[in-house]
This record gives sequence, structure tokens and C-alpha cells, in this order.
Amino acid sequence: MTTPTLPFAARAAGLVGSIIDSSTSLLHKQSHDVVRLAMGSPAAEAVPSEILAGIAATELSAPGAYDYAATEGDPPLQAALLEMLHGSSDQTTADRLTITAGGMQGLDLFCKIFVDPGDLVTVESPTYTNGSATALSYGAQLLEIPVDDHGMDVDALERLVDEAGRTPKAIYTIPTFQNPSGVTMSLQRRLRLLELARQWGSMIIDDDPYGLLRFAGEPLPTLRELGGGDPLVFAVRTFSKIVAPGLRVGWVDTAPELQPLLINAKQAMDTCTNLPGQRLVTGFLTGGHLDEHLIKQRAEYKRRKEAMHTALEEHFGDRARWTDPDGGFFCWVTIDNVDTTALFEPALAEGVAFIPGSAFSPSGRFTDALRLCFASTPPDRIHQGVARLRRAVDLLAKG
Amino acid sequence: MTTPTLPFAARAAGLVGSIIDSSTSLLHKQSHDVVRLAMGSPAAEAVPSEILAGIAATELSAPGAYDYAATEGDPPLQAALLEMLHGSSDQTTADRLTITAGGMQGLDLFCKIFVDPGDLVTVESPTYTNGSATALSYGAQLLEIPVDDHGMDVDALERLVDEAGRTPKAIYTIPTFQNPSGVTMSLQRRLRLLELARQWGSMIIDDDPYGLLRFAGEPLPTLRELGGGDPLVFAVRTFSKIVAPGLRVGWVDTAPELQPLLINAKQAMDTCTNLPGQRLVTGFLTGGHLDEHLIKQRAEYKRRKEAMHTALEEHFGDRARWTDPDGGFFCWVTIDNVDTTALFEPALAEGVAFIPGSAFSPSGRFTDALRLCFASTPPDRIHQGVARLRRAVDLLAKG
Repeated sequence: MTTPTLPFAARAAGLVGSIIDSSTSLLHKQSHDVVRLAMGSPAAEAVPSEILAGIAATELSAPGAYDYAATEGDPPLQAALLEMLHGSSDQTTADRLTITAGGMQGLDLFCKIFVDPGDLVTVESPTYTNGSATALSYGAQLLEIPVDDHGMDVDALERLVDEAGRTPKAIYTIPTFQNPSGVTMSLQRRLRLLELARQWGSMIIDDDPYGLLRFAGEPLPTLRELGGGDPLVFAVRTFSKIVAPGLRVGWVDTAPELQPLLINAKQAMDTCTNLPGQRLVTGFLTGGHLDEHLIKQRAEYKRRKEAMHTALEEHFGDRARWTDPDGGFFCWVTIDNVDTTALFEPALAEGVAFIPGSAFSPSGRFTDALRLCFASTPPDRIHQGVARLRRAVDLLAKG
Repeated sequence: MTTPTLPFAARAAGLVGSIIDSSTSLLHKQSHDVVRLAMGSPAAEAVPSEILAGIAATELSAPGAYDYAATEGDPPLQAALLEMLHGSSDQTTADRLTITAGGMQGLDLFCKIFVDPGDLVTVESPTYTNGSATALSYGAQLLEIPVDDHGMDVDALERLVDEAGRTPKAIYTIPTFQNPSGVTMSLQRRLRLLELARQWGSMIIDDDPYGLLRFAGEPLPTLRELGGGDPLVFAVRTFSKIVAPGLRVGWVDTAPELQPLLINAKQAMDTCTNLPGQRLVTGFLTGGHLDEHLIKQRAEYKRRKEAMHTALEEHFGDRARWTDPDGGFFCWVTIDNVDTTALFEPALAEGVAFIPGSAFSPSGRFTDALRLCFASTPPDRIHQGVARLRRAVDLLAKG
């Protein structure tokens, strides 16, 4: 039979992801040596695979390890998580915690519960692509708020919301070691952001996957802490960057009165978070592995960021600027007079992968910028990758 | 501080789930002996935990077992799944398969991609609560189509759509051993359903979690097979009922041109399906365990259904009717002059749990019906549970 085409257009959910998708698709097709500075994954050697395999041997032989979990999360994980957060800036109570399939599902849950078509949602510019994509998939109107070296420009937020003539339903921010820029929102701005949200009655989506990966500077209180339990703050967290991304285990910290809605919404998404992954995280936490693991990772990520800065200085000192993150995974590089989307294929041919800047803006801004992930590549390879990137820039200039 | 309330109503995503939620919440609080005929889980002893634990010992020590997976699914699982489906009614090709976080995510993906606010979606009446909930969460208008002993009444579908004055965007069906009724759509109706969908340009959501659990009667071709690759058929499948629900691994089989959209939409849901769960399913399939496992489960579920029928005949022969499923998990029981929602608490006090019928209808129909799961309880306990149910009915009648 001939294949009929669909009689109506499928909605282009998450269309902004297309640059990343085509980039990663191209990347998978490369057989030659490529320095992968593109994806935001922990280094393979940063994933505690041996410890997790050891935990699997006991936890996944326990009765019920493959059953449906409670939709709000496996009770032992909730208990271990409460203990982990005790004394931290994210200290909380059991009635505020819901386990999710990674941080991404926290964002999806927020949007499923709160975002109606046409609602205004502000996003940082640049921002995490899949975060803005999920808001778009529920029909949000996005308003991009500039980011500088001190995080989201909260004065610009106030001005742009004023110009929009209506207050946002939600303000989406990654306040610490932001994806993709690596910058951190100052304390003063965090406090002002909370003031504005309260004044407007807007929810804040406080997405903080990297906060525990600080390798320089002084810790800042999270928006969760500064909000003091305010239901306007919807905190999204994940084990993806600090333990292992493939487990798909994260959590949200919200006003307790939201939990019944979160449970209803999550039941209509995936019923529950996979239980083996929850049990593995539980074992990792109760086994006391997290602190040592984080100390090791922070030191290594610091070394890698410094290697990236040295390499950028060497190869791009004359024609680019870059951010100076105190933690996390990413540097954001702006190169004079280069179209970074056009740069992607020649760079791949030279043997280096990155994500073009326009992937991080729903309106396609930042055509002269790119995101480099320093976390997943050892220092010598970072040097090699940045040198290749410079060669690609020069080749592109020559046509 | 006092906790301010939210300044706007959170959307009641999945509100129809509330009866089930409050039921299960009540259930969790029971400390006495309760025969649990409520939830649609495989029997604890039906989950091949020992085999999976053995697979975990090898698969979860392999390199990369905790990394991000490809959004469309781990290639070894896709390969094993293709092989599993070869020669079955769901035989397919690699470009049509996308791995999901259980069948539930398949339904959520469908709605995220296709359902716009106000779109008409038909659901069976009664239907799977979380299926209708996810459609509602994207703003669908639901139209309930009666189900009889031969599945969805396709003549009624035609008539009700005609009365609605517009064609549906999607027709949601569980054609085989339906949840909650246990009935199976006849071949004639399957063919007519496909004709109507083509005539209207409507998508069919072919949700078939139980099809491999047939213990009586002759197999029928799936809508996937009858559709012959028609892009109008969106097939949703899962390992939850045939291997283990806690793994959260399922798949959708769709027109290849939908896969880029599925990848985009899934990236904005959970990035990828948990990789340990995918590796465990891969090991189960490539280890050749599925066939023997299914043979065993089918025999046991048959025994349990027969036990339930015998018990119903004994205790309700005078005042109830029930369906006669050829497979799957559920019997649907209609009791004369009983409000099954009001029955829930007294039944729990007597020591038996079920789901009231109205939970399976977005408009709250079936107040005199209830769903019993025979799959997760051994025959002697099923007898005990049905006897208790009768006592609760008599107590309720006495006031």
C-alpha cells in the first residue's frame, strides 16, 4: 500500500530542540575522532558505575524492586533524600518532596499543572532548550530575558514584563552555573526576583541541577531557601549531573498543597518513576557515597574548566569572549563575526563538537555564540578540541 | 511565615484520577488484612525478579549502563524488541519503534504531539483512567463511547460522532482485554473502526498492554497489523504487564515520519527512558526468557480468572453480572442497586479493595459497577475477597 500522509499537522512540540537534534544526529554519524564538547553529560569516568553496580547486586535482588513505585516516590528514597538535604540550602520536609524522572520531568510537571495556552512564561536568554520546549508544548508565550555575568538581568525582567503589558504566569530560571552560560545569579538579584514574583503573583521555576558542583567562589542560598517555603517557588532538582543521568531520578520541592496535583499529573505521564533507578540512588545515598563523590568531581571539573580557559586564551584570545563559571558544566563563548550554526559542520569535520548558540534561544538569538561543555572531556582533549575549533573558524572565514 | 496560597488555580490535570488516588491512599493506611483486587499490577510472584536480578549483575556492570540513553531508545533494546515482535501481529520495522517510559508515556506523547485544546477525542466508556486524564490535561473534549461484550460499540461511535457534529482528532481504544472491562473488540469492529478513522482522518490510539496475556479463545490481529502501517494508527505497548511495571519501559510503533516529533516531544518530557531498565529488558529478551514466562503467566491468570468467576457465581449469582475476559487482568462487575463508590469504605473495612466504576468514566458513569483485578491475587484469596465483598454489599444495604 502507499503510505497516506497525516491529514493534519502534528504539533511541533519542542521545535526549538531541532538544532540540537540535528547536531547530535550528525554527531552520531561521525566515525572519526571527535572531541565532544557538545552534550551536557557528566564525564563517563565521573559516573560512579562500579559503586552503582555493587548496589545493584543487593538492592535489585530485594523483594518488590521491579514493582510499581508510589507515584510520589519510593519512601526509602524520600527518607534518604531528606537526610541528604538536611543542613543544606535545600533543607526541606517530607510533605514537599515528589520524586520525578529527572529534572526534565519536574519542568514538564510544572507546565502540565500551571501553563495554559497563551500564558506568558519568561525564560532566560540564553536558556536550557528543553525547558523552553516543554513550556512551548503547552502553548506558553515565551518572553526572553537577557543574562549577563551575574545571571538573569532582573531589571530587564521588570522592564520587559512592563512592556509586555501583562505579568508572567511563571519565571523560569537556572540560577546557578546556568545552562548554557555557566553564570550564577547574584544574591541581590535572587532577592529582587522573589520580590517581583510576589508582586506579580508569578511562579518561579527554580531549576538548579548544578548547584552542588561548585568548585570556586562562595555558595549562595538557593531560591528555594530564600523563598522560605513560599508556594510561588517550584524547585526542580536532579541526580543526573551529580550521580548518573541514565537513572532518570530527580525531585521537585513544592508547597505541600501541590502534591496531590503533582501525583495526578505524574500518573498521566509515566505512572511512577522507575523503581530500580530509585533504589540505586537510595543505596548510593545511604551508603554514604555522595560527599566523597562530589569532592572528587568538583576538583576534576575545576581542572577541566581551567584547561578550557587556558586553551580559549591561547586560541581565541584575539577574537572571542567567554564566561567564567564557578561550577557546573558549561562555558559560553561569543566569537566575533562567526555564524556558529554555519560553523558546526566544518568544526565536526575538524574533529570537535559543540552546540550552536541559537539552540538556546526560542527566537534564534546568539548566532555568534556557542556552548562548550568542559565537564565530560579530560584537559588534554579539551586543548585539542579548542585548537580544532579555532582551525574550523579560520577555515570557515576563508570560505 | 504564614504560607500564602497560590494566586491562581493550578490546573487540575488528571482530575478523573482522584477517585483512584483517594482509594489507594485509603488503602495504604490499612493495617489489617486486605485482599487487594484494586490495582492493575502483575502478581508479585509473576514478576521474574530472580531472572532480572541475575541480568542486573551483568548488564548493570557494563560500561555506560548509567549514561543518558538515546531519546528514541537504547539500540540493543530496539534490536531485541524487533526480534521479539518478528512473526507476531505487531511485527514491525526499526524506523517505526520508539522506546518510552511505559505505555503511559506513549499516551502522553500522543497527546503532546496531536491534541490541541478543544480537540475532540473519543474514549471507551468505561476506559483507562490515566489515558483519559492525559488527554484532558492537554485540553481535549472527551466523548464517551459505550463498550459491550465485543468491545467498543463502533456503531455507537459513528452515531455519537455524527451527533457531536464534528470528527474526532483521535479515537482512544484498548481493543484487547480492555481496562477496566476485560472485553475484546471483535475483528469485524476492528475493521470497521479502521474504516471510520480513515473516513474521518482520525488517529487511532491502539493501546494494547495485555494482548500477549491471552489464556482463552483465538488470537485476533492487532489494530497495528490490520492498519498495515497506516500512519493513522498510533500503537502503544508496554513491558509493564508482561515483564515488570517498575522498570517503566514500553514502546510506540508509529509512522516513521513521526519519530523526529516523538524524539522532540520526549526530550521535553524526560530526555530519555531510564537506561538500567532498558538494559534489564534487553537481557530478559536476549536471554530467551519471555516465551516461557508468558506461558507460565497465562496459565496462572486463567486459573485466577476462573477462581474469580466461581466466587462471583457463588456470592453474587443472584444480583450481579460480570464480564468473561479471555486474557489480561480484569473482570468488570455490575451489581444491582449498589453505589460502588459508597461501597468502597465498608468493603475496605471488611478486608477487600476494588476500584469503583465511576473512576473509569470522565463523566462519572458506572456508579453500580466496579473493577476487580484477578491477576495479582492467588485463587484462595480471590474467594475470600469476593466473599468479603458480598458481606460489604449486604452491610451497606442494611445501612
